[in-house]
Amino acid sequence: MSESKDIQKVTETITGPHQVNPYGPNPGDFLSNVNNFQLIDSTLREGEQFANAFFDTEKKIEIAKALDDFGVDYIELTSPVASEQSRKDCEAICKLGLKAKILTHIRCHMDDARVAVETGVDGVDVVIGTSKFLRQYSHGKDMNYIAKSAVEVIEFVKSKGIEIRFSSEDSFRSDLVDLLNIYKTVDKIGVNRVGIADTVGCANPRQVYELIRTLKSVVSCDIECHFHNDTGCAIANAYCALEGGARLIDVSVLGIGERNGITPLGGLMARMIVAAPEYVKSKYKLHKIRDIENLVAEAVEVNIPFNNPITGFCAFTHKAGIHAKAILANPSTYEILDPHDFGMKRYIHFANRLTGWNAIKSRVDQLNLNLTDDQVKEVTAKIKKMGDIRPLNIDDVDSIIKDFHTGLATPAIKPVDLTTEEPAAKKTKYSK
Amino acid sequence: MSESKDIQKVTETITGPHQVNPYGPNPGDFLSNVNNFQLIDSTLREGEQFANAFFDTEKKIEIAKALDDFGVDYIELTSPVASEQSRKDCEAICKLGLKAKILTHIRCHMDDARVAVETGVDGVDVVIGTSKFLRQYSHGKDMNYIAKSAVEVIEFVKSKGIEIRFSSEDSFRSDLVDLLNIYKTVDKIGVNRVGIADTVGCANPRQVYELIRTLKSVVSCDIECHFHNDTGCAIANAYCALEGGARLIDVSVLGIGERNGITPLGGLMARMIVAAPEYVKSKYKLHKIRDIENLVAEAVEVNIPFNNPITGFCAFTHKAGIHAKAILANPSTYEILDPHDFGMKRYIHFANRLTGWNAIKSRVDQLNLNLTDDQVKEVTAKIKKMGDIRPLNIDDVDSIIKDFHTGLATPAIKPVDLTTEEPAAKKTKYSK
Repeated sequence: MSESKDIQKVTETITGPHQVNPYGPNPGDFLSNVNNFQLIDSTLREGEQFANAFFDTEKKIEIAKALDDFGVDYIELTSPVASEQSRKDCEAICKLGLKAKILTHIRCHMDDARVAVETGVDGVDVVIGTSKFLRQYSHGKDMNYIAKSAVEVIEFVKSKGIEIRFSSEDSFRSDLVDLLNIYKTVDKIGVNRVGIADTVGCANPRQVYELIRTLKSVVSCDIECHFHNDTGCAIANAYCALEGGARLIDVSVLGIGERNGITPLGGLMARMIVAAPEYVKSKYKLHKIRDIENLVAEAVEVNIPFNNPITGFCAFTHKAGIHAKAILANPSTYEILDPHDFGMKRYIHFANRLTGWNAIKSRVDQLNLNLTDDQVKEVTAKIKKMGDIRPLNIDDVDSIIKDFHTGLATPAIKPVDLTTEEPAAKKTKYSK
Repeated sequence: MSESKDIQKVTETITGPHQVNPYGPNPGDFLSNVNNFQLIDSTLREGEQFANAFFDTEKKIEIAKALDDFGVDYIELTSPVASEQSRKDCEAICKLGLKAKILTHIRCHMDDARVAVETGVDGVDVVIGTSKFLRQYSHGKDMNYIAKSAVEVIEFVKSKGIEIRFSSEDSFRSDLVDLLNIYKTVDKIGVNRVGIADTVGCANPRQVYELIRTLKSVVSCDIECHFHNDTGCAIANAYCALEGGARLIDVSVLGIGERNGITPLGGLMARMIVAAPEYVKSKYKLHKIRDIENLVAEAVEVNIPFNNPITGFCAFTHKAGIHAKAILANPSTYEILDPHDFGMKRYIHFANRLTGWNAIKSRVDQLNLNLTDDQVKEVTAKIKKMGDIRPLNIDDVDSIIKDFHTGLATPAIKPVDLTTEEPAAKKTKYSK
């Protein structure tokens, strides 16, 4: 094929949602894959580009098995041409017989493709930089060259009966017409997926939605998205991409990757369970998230961030008095996520000056003491006063309550269980 | 006023962007405050609701001064009715004479309002739950009661010459007509701001944009937004709120707050500097972010998350060979944030099996050795081979390079500086 035929302007053929029957389904609902998405876990590719990552073969296999058990649809591995051991590890993981499909990630070059197809992978992810920055400072090629290389590599990989994805790199700083042209070209020759990558983490949610919706009108294959988290939008961008019609999201455990990483597996699950609870709960083993995060955190020697969605130490801790009151009455008042869906527990933090009498009443009940509401309010005032002076722990609060109780004219008839040391929500009748 | 007059259906008066002259400015651009936003830092209110937070007076003052120096527009403090010390601390911070305006945050109740106006604050933030959850399980009041209380509190605070914000709580699970009605009512009686709060962290970016855009057509006062981060969208939601016409965003240092917190100050700065670089750089002292985060992290006894935007230990670390190559040629290829804007440095991680010869060449130059490109490629292959066997550090790589150099038939004429231990990017002529 001549180069001029490979690249044809496609703008005139774009059929945007504005052409849809206005009395038909809402275009947004029609395009959305929020209820029908797939996960490509890239902990063993993007994650290997995290500063601290060094996975030996045994650790890679352990992580791959854990991800497979969790239910990810694809597992992406480092290019077999990165190093000799990378190639051997790729072959070893392909032989495990996992349910998840195994992918490897290569440059858009026949040298890489020839090695990749021999490893036993189910699919090859091809990437090439299309932004003016990458074309100038990385590979130095123009769009015609990129398209020509892409066609050659794609047809070769397809001829081996292996899945193929073609992705641009730095898609959000690439020329829109160039992008749509090359995606249309590779879609026509039958790629399984095209990929949009926010390689530098610059994209914002509404921009993502618009680009995906436009691309969706140009290609018939699935769309995969890859979002870096430099500006903190990687989860939100993934969500908006699904709303716009993308089908697959690249994730990694704890989001590890180049710089501060990509869309995290756990964080995306928190987002998606709110939007598509039945789909998410039926497809993925959510209670395994904590174990998988601990496995990877230990391997790359980081701590779980204190504010991590789901597994951060305080993700289900309620502190302010008015919050604690409502949570005790109905957890949905201040929780969009149910900790039990993730094998976690809720905790009412009552030992502090922001506490309220409802939280203290719950503790009084746990301690099996009889106090009237007015008495609970009185002891709560004492606790808040002490909390003004210094940080309190559960023992401090219990001592104040017990002292108060002992000092009452009419002591309780019930025996006091002094051994109770459970967090408030654990035993209360109010907790789900 | 009778209750029936307080609450009037306002849907018929909403003038949505579809009524705007189609040849006029893009409604999105017209509404956007991306280039004109303000920050309300709530580290000393929302942040005090973080599980680990106990700030004594001295620490509160230190944090308030640091935030003021950074340039936040408002500093929000815990309610003076939360505890006796909370009231005293509020008064003490009001007396500091900071540039930032001081706010306190109270329930929509005259008991609270009477205390708040005596503390010396510049403004009072009033909040009440409007979702069916909070109306049922928290305060048990209906919308008429809420509107009546709001009007009483607002008129009282205004009569004292103090700024007033009225916010709903759990806005995204509240009835839209109820919400618009009460906001229209309080706007008419002259509040300075209305607030939208995603109290449970359930909102998604396009939903935020739509709600703010609708609200913008109903009220003439400023709109403030407060986003919890349970599903990882707090930064993105803040950005989309500004696009939709909100003017003020609630943040806290490291995002500390109830559960896993709210929009983080640093993360939002990362997002905003990409969208509005001149505005952000001229208004806020970005190089202070690291110090402020360290101050608060130490006070609440947490570590800076490894993947924190800007200040995470690897936020500006580049590892993969193709990334390092392009970064050395032009940092913009793989960086949307310039580390120097934040007083940070870039680091090229070259001691690993994913390294490329461009990164190693940069290290060879630092070591002041003379190697041809072919020689650098040869030694890079040796380094990648060693990197397959075990994690490498800089000393390992330097030893391999120096051994290789010593073994050459034509040794370099330049003297070798054996003391150099700097990260690759620090000295190279390529770094900005």
